[in-house]
Amino acid sequence: SRSLNLAVIPGDGIGQEVVAEGLKVLSAVLPQDVKLETKEYDFGAKRYHATGETLTDADLAALKQHDVILLGAIGDPSVPSGVLERGFLLKLRFAFDHHVNLRPSKLLPGVATPLAGQPEIDFVVVREGTEGPYTGNGGTIRKGTEHEVATEVSVNTAFGVERVVRDAFARAQARPRKKLTLVHKNNVLTFAGHLWTNIFNKVAAEFPEVETDYIHVDAATIYLVTQPERFDVIVTDNLFGDIITDLAAAVSGGIGVAASGNINPSREFPSMFEPVHGSAPDIAGQGKADPTATVLSVALLLRHLGYDAEADRIDTAVAADLTERVGKPARSTSEIGDALAVRVAG
Amino acid sequence: SRSLNLAVIPGDGIGQEVVAEGLKVLSAVLPQDVKLETKEYDFGAKRYHATGETLTDADLAALKQHDVILLGAIGDPSVPSGVLERGFLLKLRFAFDHHVNLRPSKLLPGVATPLAGQPEIDFVVVREGTEGPYTGNGGTIRKGTEHEVATEVSVNTAFGVERVVRDAFARAQARPRKKLTLVHKNNVLTFAGHLWTNIFNKVAAEFPEVETDYIHVDAATIYLVTQPERFDVIVTDNLFGDIITDLAAAVSGGIGVAASGNINPSREFPSMFEPVHGSAPDIAGQGKADPTATVLSVALLLRHLGYDAEADRIDTAVAADLTERVGKPARSTSEIGDALAVRVAG
Ligand SMILES: CC(C)[C@H](C(=O)O)[C@@H](O)C(=O)O
Ligand SMILES: CC(C)[C@H](C(=O)O)[C@@H](O)C(=O)O
Repeated sequence: SRSLNLAVIPGDGIGQEVVAEGLKVLSAVLPQDVKLETKEYDFGAKRYHATGETLTDADLAALKQHDVILLGAIGDPSVPSGVLERGFLLKLRFAFDHHVNLRPSKLLPGVATPLAGQPEIDFVVVREGTEGPYTGNGGTIRKGTEHEVATEVSVNTAFGVERVVRDAFARAQARPRKKLTLVHKNNVLTFAGHLWTNIFNKVAAEFPEVETDYIHVDAATIYLVTQPERFDVIVTDNLFGDIITDLAAAVSGGIGVAASGNINPSREFPSMFEPVHGSAPDIAGQGKADPTATVLSVALLLRHLGYDAEADRIDTAVAADLTERVGKPARSTSEIGDALAVRVAG
Repeated sequence: SRSLNLAVIPGDGIGQEVVAEGLKVLSAVLPQDVKLETKEYDFGAKRYHATGETLTDADLAALKQHDVILLGAIGDPSVPSGVLERGFLLKLRFAFDHHVNLRPSKLLPGVATPLAGQPEIDFVVVREGTEGPYTGNGGTIRKGTEHEVATEVSVNTAFGVERVVRDAFARAQARPRKKLTLVHKNNVLTFAGHLWTNIFNKVAAEFPEVETDYIHVDAATIYLVTQPERFDVIVTDNLFGDIITDLAAAVSGGIGVAASGNINPSREFPSMFEPVHGSAPDIAGQGKADPTATVLSVALLLRHLGYDAEADRIDTAVAADLTERVGKPARSTSEIGDALAVRVAG
């Protein structure tokens, strides 16, 4: 019999609530013969305040024993900006070499979008997850004085760029439209830009069926609101990916339905799945959070492990639920989770 | 009698066409006693192909003699990406210390926006223009090999951040809503982020009437499409400003109406005004380009020189023209310029 050994990190704020619903749907959809084992970890603001720790070497060793990780959200206003982000979220992505940050955007029929005319949106962003301006390289001199200088170094390697570009080409090849767009700013960030562009063009030669395109990141934000249908798969740098996936989420149903995977395709380390949204402390504990993004992250998790049919059932259930929501009164976090669990089981 | 000594850089593609209309409107709106002197410069792709030059020391010395500069657009597919951007546009911004990059966004009644429900949009982005990831610091080792490493260094100084933050506070103070939002990514880019945040908070104490706010750049793209009315003045880094002003232009009428100023507030060097759009080679020479962004850039130019009444007349003329366009057949570049020239003179 098969098993799924899952690390669960509810985290802060609404993280607790949405992860509970994600697990509910996961249990409902998993085949009977799969033994689901879960272990909960207490990372986040509470642990930081209690112990000063964000993610220790022992924590990493423990997490490494799991097949995959499901994360709710980490972050609280009581913790200085950057402490949990750099000390937990980014530390984990780097330690587990999560170089493929996968963020699908699909606007389902009837779902609210700030865009007029309900455009067709169905694309996936493959965001690099371990390089670029996110490495923490840089520093500060003369801190707090009028002569302070602060630098941030974006580090880009042929190794790091090629593996994520290759992953994105393979994903584009497997989709009906077979189109891949590189988003960068190669006319200004010419060192990194040339590396990305050259590798993109080199790998493109190995994927003759994939149509390729290049767009500057500033122009990409325009197309995301005026012609989102032009995108199929996008590959981009860590920071540009951070920015455009929030915009992509906003136009395709909101961050309440935006899922993501921090993937280590080699499976040397467990991959981590999480909603794109944060901990939303303003609505935490009120049963108001939409667990859909977490449930869709569970679908990405299942697909990563090869449970494609189960992932499809979640996607179908979410699509039906979202379409049925239109015009109805808002439901609570657990009501949405219950409805989705019933659908995927049925 | 007064004089206005203007350097004109039509540039490439539609740059030629839109600048002609900008000058038409400028001549029509200027008071009779102001002697307008213009000198045209041939920077751009043609000059680069003919001489290999983009912007020489002699060019900079010549440009420095002018009161202000009006630019159309620079860039052509025949020139490798980055050559004219780094060799002309950015070189000029850095040489003339254009540290305030001013980009207003206002959605006028009846003007098309990709957003549903015609939201209220009326804000100004103050983008830093001489630091951040735009400095060209960084480099490449082992170029073209599988061991290539390319870096980009974002350089941020207390001097550079404080002067632009101060400028933004003063602009916020002068507007009815008096609200200033800092956009950065201080939870990840902690070195630069702390510098920006600390200086922002320090200067805020001197402007007690200005309401302040902080938003991460990724979240800012969400608000720009879901709640653009929350913004009044935004101050941000060079790269974040590049990205969010294209999005801001897209939601508030398109890049056909987005104006910008590259300003040196000390007037030690001439400031430069230009539409946010590029040279659009696909429609160049066909009379299809909308000169409105250039005409609005002329208004920013006039305001910079203290011709506030004339700038207001241009803004009013453009607002009336845009509202009248609704449902009418498209006009040519010069028809729009003619109509605006008549309005401002009238
Ligand atoms: C919280 C932050 C570190 C994170 C990021 O910038 O990657 C978040 O914005 C995201 O997109 O997952
Ligand atoms: C052309 C390019 C150098 C420029 C920039 O990135 O600043 C443009 O995008 C802009 O916004 O003016």
